Amino acid sequence: MLRNQEQILSKIANNDGHGENSAFFDGWKAYDSDPYHPTQNPNGVIQMGLAENQLSMDLVEEWVRNNPQASICTPEGASRFKDIAIYQDYHGLPEFRIAVARFMEKVRGNRVRFDPDRIVMSGGATGTQETLAFCLADPGDALLVPTPYYPGNDRDLTWRTGIELIPVVCDSSNDFKMTRDALETAYNKAQETNTKVKGLLLNNPSNPLGTVLDRETLSMAINFINDKNIHLICDEIYSATVFDEPGFISIAEILQESPDTNPELIHIVYSLSKDLGFPGFRVGILYSYNDAVVTCARKMSSFGLVSTQTQLLVASMLSDEEFMEKFLAESTARLCARRGTLRQGLAQMGVGILKGSAGLYCWMDLRRLLKAATFEAEMELWRVIVNDVRINVSPGASFHCSEPGWFRVCFANMDDETMRVALGRISKLVMQSNKNSESRKPCRRRSKLEISLSFRRLDEIMMSPHSPMTSPLVRART
Amino acid sequence: MLRNQEQILSKIANNDGHGENSAFFDGWKAYDSDPYHPTQNPNGVIQMGLAENQLSMDLVEEWVRNNPQASICTPEGASRFKDIAIYQDYHGLPEFRIAVARFMEKVRGNRVRFDPDRIVMSGGATGTQETLAFCLADPGDALLVPTPYYPGNDRDLTWRTGIELIPVVCDSSNDFKMTRDALETAYNKAQETNTKVKGLLLNNPSNPLGTVLDRETLSMAINFINDKNIHLICDEIYSATVFDEPGFISIAEILQESPDTNPELIHIVYSLSKDLGFPGFRVGILYSYNDAVVTCARKMSSFGLVSTQTQLLVASMLSDEEFMEKFLAESTARLCARRGTLRQGLAQMGVGILKGSAGLYCWMDLRRLLKAATFEAEMELWRVIVNDVRINVSPGASFHCSEPGWFRVCFANMDDETMRVALGRISKLVMQSNKNSESRKPCRRRSKLEISLSFRRLDEIMMSPHSPMTSPLVRART
Repeated sequence: MLRNQEQILSKIANNDGHGENSAFFDGWKAYDSDPYHPTQNPNGVIQMGLAENQLSMDLVEEWVRNNPQASICTPEGASRFKDIAIYQDYHGLPEFRIAVARFMEKVRGNRVRFDPDRIVMSGGATGTQETLAFCLADPGDALLVPTPYYPGNDRDLTWRTGIELIPVVCDSSNDFKMTRDALETAYNKAQETNTKVKGLLLNNPSNPLGTVLDRETLSMAINFINDKNIHLICDEIYSATVFDEPGFISIAEILQESPDTNPELIHIVYSLSKDLGFPGFRVGILYSYNDAVVTCARKMSSFGLVSTQTQLLVASMLSDEEFMEKFLAESTARLCARRGTLRQGLAQMGVGILKGSAGLYCWMDLRRLLKAATFEAEMELWRVIVNDVRINVSPGASFHCSEPGWFRVCFANMDDETMRVALGRISKLVMQSNKNSESRKPCRRRSKLEISLSFRRLDEIMMSPHSPMTSPLVRART
Repeated sequence: MLRNQEQILSKIANNDGHGENSAFFDGWKAYDSDPYHPTQNPNGVIQMGLAENQLSMDLVEEWVRNNPQASICTPEGASRFKDIAIYQDYHGLPEFRIAVARFMEKVRGNRVRFDPDRIVMSGGATGTQETLAFCLADPGDALLVPTPYYPGNDRDLTWRTGIELIPVVCDSSNDFKMTRDALETAYNKAQETNTKVKGLLLNNPSNPLGTVLDRETLSMAINFINDKNIHLICDEIYSATVFDEPGFISIAEILQESPDTNPELIHIVYSLSKDLGFPGFRVGILYSYNDAVVTCARKMSSFGLVSTQTQLLVASMLSDEEFMEKFLAESTARLCARRGTLRQGLAQMGVGILKGSAGLYCWMDLRRLLKAATFEAEMELWRVIVNDVRINVSPGASFHCSEPGWFRVCFANMDDETMRVALGRISKLVMQSNKNSESRKPCRRRSKLEISLSFRRLDEIMMSPHSPMTSPLVRART
């Protein structure tokens, strides 16, 4: 950027707080510049870096065809066009709030109740997270976040708000479970630098782990935040994307069982981008037990209201109880089957994944393929995977993982055949790696040469100022 | 708020930067608590405080019925459901950006060209304004804004960004035209307090004045900002809502004629909330001539993307050239007729309005009805209008007007019959006022008594903590 530009724009515009400079997003660039297609581009990059749920869209499409009254753009619904198009009350359409609250209850086995008046809209979960950060913390304050965590958190929670995220370090020794000790360590570290900790951010089910938090961990977390009088933000955007045991337990249930906890400290982030597969519709939801936060966040929702056209459609679909039952049953069955295919395929190659029951991805253990237990080696392996194997997966470092060698692999954004091709490619990588580790030096050197060639290929894409990909973070939240 | 709440929430959550405490929004509360209906509530409050365009919605509804392929919720469009629902590229659907750019050109008489790659989405103009503030200025920096100006600017531009708005004082002596002197005065005042001025915000056509900026004023403004090397934000959200002479001149045209101006300083704010009457759809647009701002704002658009369902509909409608021609012609004709009705009705009572050719409102001069030339007297008169006359109009003070006695009256959010009733009510107010000013002291006292009774009525609504209206700023931008 020219010097004048730096002076005439803001610090935010000049900093890199958006977090776009990450392998997480670089991988998308690599995919976007050469996307796989079974016939037209069979050697293209397969996108396994995108947590998108495409497996059950046929059911939704069928519902839409059968329910023309749900849209203001059909003869059956057009008479409502005017009222819906001009409606901009920041509370949202009453039927929308009610339908979202009921759906959130259903997903939690009707073991908790949600008050529709506490449902606040935002522009996707991206907007919800930022709204909460603005409501809860001042610039310089911090939130604790267990690692590994979703890379977009840095953008969503810190970029424009000026707050900080402090990692709570978790590792594979206990399957990345968050402990009270880890929480206290992170909290104390903040105290030492005079950083005010305003809350703890949990993501349950976890992106990238594909695991759910158990009752003990949730109880421990709620006790911790209550002891410290700080907030607990529970990002539950994958709550209906749980397809196996152990099942999902919402913080809402734990709160119900914790009479000594101050409910005003608890806030739930939700969205329809993952559970229904509508990321384009930008439906973000905040559910807060704190009246002042509900009031303030609702005022802030003016910056990211959900289109009323979309509110109406979503309200109609979510309140069709029979359809939603069927959709959830079928969707989870398909996700479970798909994850099974991936898990078994990897197992046959001797590659393990973290045991999980949720999400649109799994957490793949490639530690034994690393040349050394370092993040440099992880990045080197990642470049081989993107350039040579031609798959975009996301390296653990981009999730702030504390130990190198883990990769997030998404499995719900493709068809069965693409998954088969992807598994074939991974298999070749593993075989090559096995071969390399058995072989002598000359072979190793050859392998290294391949890698350095690959580096150039990826760098060429990344560095070109004229690339259409210079703004890679094209997706709002993935 | 309890003390603990104050401590656990942010400064933003605890401050009143949202600007809800204003007669602008109090009037909405008064309307919402007792809305006029011709048969069910004929004594209710008539809403003339809402800049909403409802006069041509029948044309849009007809188009929607005739174009089922424009929606993913019809048999004709449902096959695209999946691709649209999962599309979340922050560049927006290419057809959406192209259609918006072409429409913006059409509205400007095709005298300028807009590059679709510079079209950035936001959550309504509300979101666009905030995005620009984040891109251009740091906390403590300021933008100059000529008065009177739209009250939502305070919320949109300053609340979460921490920047300041500095009024450029305009008054009725020259029909509220902005002069270079007024600009320099405001600029110098900021310098004296060491406040860094980062830009000038113009709203053309003006809300609340209903006027367009002339070529000379626009040229003067562009020279001013170029001289100072500060930004020019042009809010042109009413650009297609110009129905009389003088016509609309966009800053894009002036820029084209100003080879010495640095285009990187120029940014246009647009939206479909006013010109098409779709405030519920939350289509906000930023068009910047500055590459860095386009890049940064696009990253920020993740916080307020337009629903892809809505992008598709809007793209289809805007690219139907024949329909848009017809719509714009008919819409402006209807707006012109409606404004004429209001102007003539008021003229018959001896009430003047500022000469204007645009907007969904006019700027009504009630200075002679004030008991004194003070804002206290303006507020007193406003309370009489809301409580006794039972019309919600917005007092000049809420627009930061520099002289008391002006009121914004919206005319496009109601049918002809409601407009007739409203005029009848205003007529009674004026007659009563004429009578009072001719009468002696005892009468005056009686009039004062009526006013103080009215105060109680309004205050009762405002102050009740249990009122459903405790969050009155229900609309995002009006």
